[in-house]
Amino acid sequence: MTQLETTIARLRPPSAEIAADVQRRLDRKIKPLGSLGRLEEVACAVAGIRRMPTPEPPVKAVVVMAGDHGVADEGVSAFPQAVTAQMVRNFAGGGAAINVLARQAGAQLVVVDMGVKEELPPLPGVRSARIGSGTRNMARGPAMTRAEAIRALETGIGIAEELTDAGVTLIGLGEMGIANTTAASALTAAFTGLSPAEVTGRGTGIDDATWSHKVDVVQRALEANATPPVDAIDTLARLGGFEIAGLAGVALGAASRGIPVLTDGFIATAGALAAARIAPDTSGAILASHRSVEAGQRALLHALGKKPLLDLDLRLGEGTGGALAMAIVEASIRVLREMASFDDAGVSGAVR
Amino acid sequence: MTQLETTIARLRPPSAEIAADVQRRLDRKIKPLGSLGRLEEVACAVAGIRRMPTPEPPVKAVVVMAGDHGVADEGVSAFPQAVTAQMVRNFAGGGAAINVLARQAGAQLVVVDMGVKEELPPLPGVRSARIGSGTRNMARGPAMTRAEAIRALETGIGIAEELTDAGVTLIGLGEMGIANTTAASALTAAFTGLSPAEVTGRGTGIDDATWSHKVDVVQRALEANATPPVDAIDTLARLGGFEIAGLAGVALGAASRGIPVLTDGFIATAGALAAARIAPDTSGAILASHRSVEAGQRALLHALGKKPLLDLDLRLGEGTGGALAMAIVEASIRVLREMASFDDAGVSGAVR
Repeated sequence: MTQLETTIARLRPPSAEIAADVQRRLDRKIKPLGSLGRLEEVACAVAGIRRMPTPEPPVKAVVVMAGDHGVADEGVSAFPQAVTAQMVRNFAGGGAAINVLARQAGAQLVVVDMGVKEELPPLPGVRSARIGSGTRNMARGPAMTRAEAIRALETGIGIAEELTDAGVTLIGLGEMGIANTTAASALTAAFTGLSPAEVTGRGTGIDDATWSHKVDVVQRALEANATPPVDAIDTLARLGGFEIAGLAGVALGAASRGIPVLTDGFIATAGALAAARIAPDTSGAILASHRSVEAGQRALLHALGKKPLLDLDLRLGEGTGGALAMAIVEASIRVLREMASFDDAGVSGAVR
Repeated sequence: MTQLETTIARLRPPSAEIAADVQRRLDRKIKPLGSLGRLEEVACAVAGIRRMPTPEPPVKAVVVMAGDHGVADEGVSAFPQAVTAQMVRNFAGGGAAINVLARQAGAQLVVVDMGVKEELPPLPGVRSARIGSGTRNMARGPAMTRAEAIRALETGIGIAEELTDAGVTLIGLGEMGIANTTAASALTAAFTGLSPAEVTGRGTGIDDATWSHKVDVVQRALEANATPPVDAIDTLARLGGFEIAGLAGVALGAASRGIPVLTDGFIATAGALAAARIAPDTSGAILASHRSVEAGQRALLHALGKKPLLDLDLRLGEGTGGALAMAIVEASIRVLREMASFDDAGVSGAVR
């Protein structure tokens, strides 16, 4: 079997039994029943994913994958394509938003060049796993070959395995790539059946005319790749990107190891849905970090059946939403581990 | 002038000029304009409140005030009144939810006995500032005298001053008191003009019959205290509680020192609105931490004109929502302090 096939074969759904046991233990903590709301839900989910009744507080990592997109040639972004490489340099320099938020979260930051257009020199903290110098223009045909998509998926799986081998127990997905909201829109339309206009947003901030043009480009990409896809890998290859496929691989790899994965904004969530379409049991390991301003992300969360933990009007990507949500996940585990129960504490229970 | 009058005289609205300067600096950070959403809003707010262009990351404290309520005699809570004192013991023991979440947030926890019914022995980490052995039953007349309410307000002011003198720059409000959602409902009805049924919720978890009874008790409390109040202090005295008035004092004291205050659930937010009704300029220093399950809390947030940062279905109180939101506030300040600008980083700006 290939690495991808082996990973998919190892996937199991989270343990409903362990999750239910955790809820019973939370119900005995000194608080009204259910009063910690979504913290209780997250504690149950993480314990079920990890198949551990009392997980340790999470050891965190954010994986930020960068890649360029041939569809940028269509003029769909407010920023020039060179910004992808410039931002990778900034991740190396420590001054980007995700550097700041990962530091605060206590999360290791792993930056991966999955195929930025410009060849970058070796940069501190940046791994090179280039599949190519940007994808091809999906408005004219497939963005990637199937073989390229599988290489990107397996790169992500390998990174997830390496991190979990090193003790990481919570992984956030992040990305950088000029024009990658256009790819995410096309993938979302293909996976959910919604129209290009319903799933295309403003990305990093485009005007009305550019938005209409972007919808048209997404429509053309769907038409240029209209042959019925063989499977979800095929759809991902045609309409995705190196970094999106890489993140789908990270999700698959983490899920196969029983490690929860935090989504981020539109693009990272598209990667998570791609993973769940490739192997549905991935879905159990996915936690939705935040609701993005991008309309397409809502469609993806709906398709995944996930409710986000945060709603802070973010639309930056880079893994920023996942990094912020890590504190909520940690809080849920600490509540389970550290709160006293009614029995320990000599507190009277409800009288009704 | 009294301590209360001096504090009110010192209040100033946040600096709109500093907030606007911070937004201009955030607009030059290496990210699409406005893409950090509410983090940007919070950074501007905190800088404006503190009147500092670049505040330090916050030094955090959560003030949990406990008090008992005469209206518990009406059978409005799912828990016996003894639980207030039991929970204060648990705060001292470190096993309550707020202990866990304050530890995670890196926040000092200050627990204050404002008037629990049972006289507690000295407990580690618990301050005694008892105004009485619980308030009187507001369903039969005023819960507190005006003098008691002012003593509670000044106790809160004193604690806020002491904490800010010691370097604290972000204060979360928390409370414990069996039957205090009933007091919060009565205060909310009085301050907003909404009906008891609109502002009365399930508290720690009551059934339909007890809920109807609780609405009736709130109605009776409003009727028993129907003489037009002289001012907001008068309303607070009649329908509030020692811990609610104390938290209003903490908000006044913090605001007068230019220190932001995080609300929590229904009761703490009632304290915050009481402070804003006593002295409207308090409002500028208030940050809404989370949206509670309690309907009355939404009315309070609306009256304060605040949008909460988190919505995690919490209904515990103790300051848990504020403790969780501290990470968001810290993130907003770190973004302002630590992110590179387009000028520093050599990143191309938007082309449109």
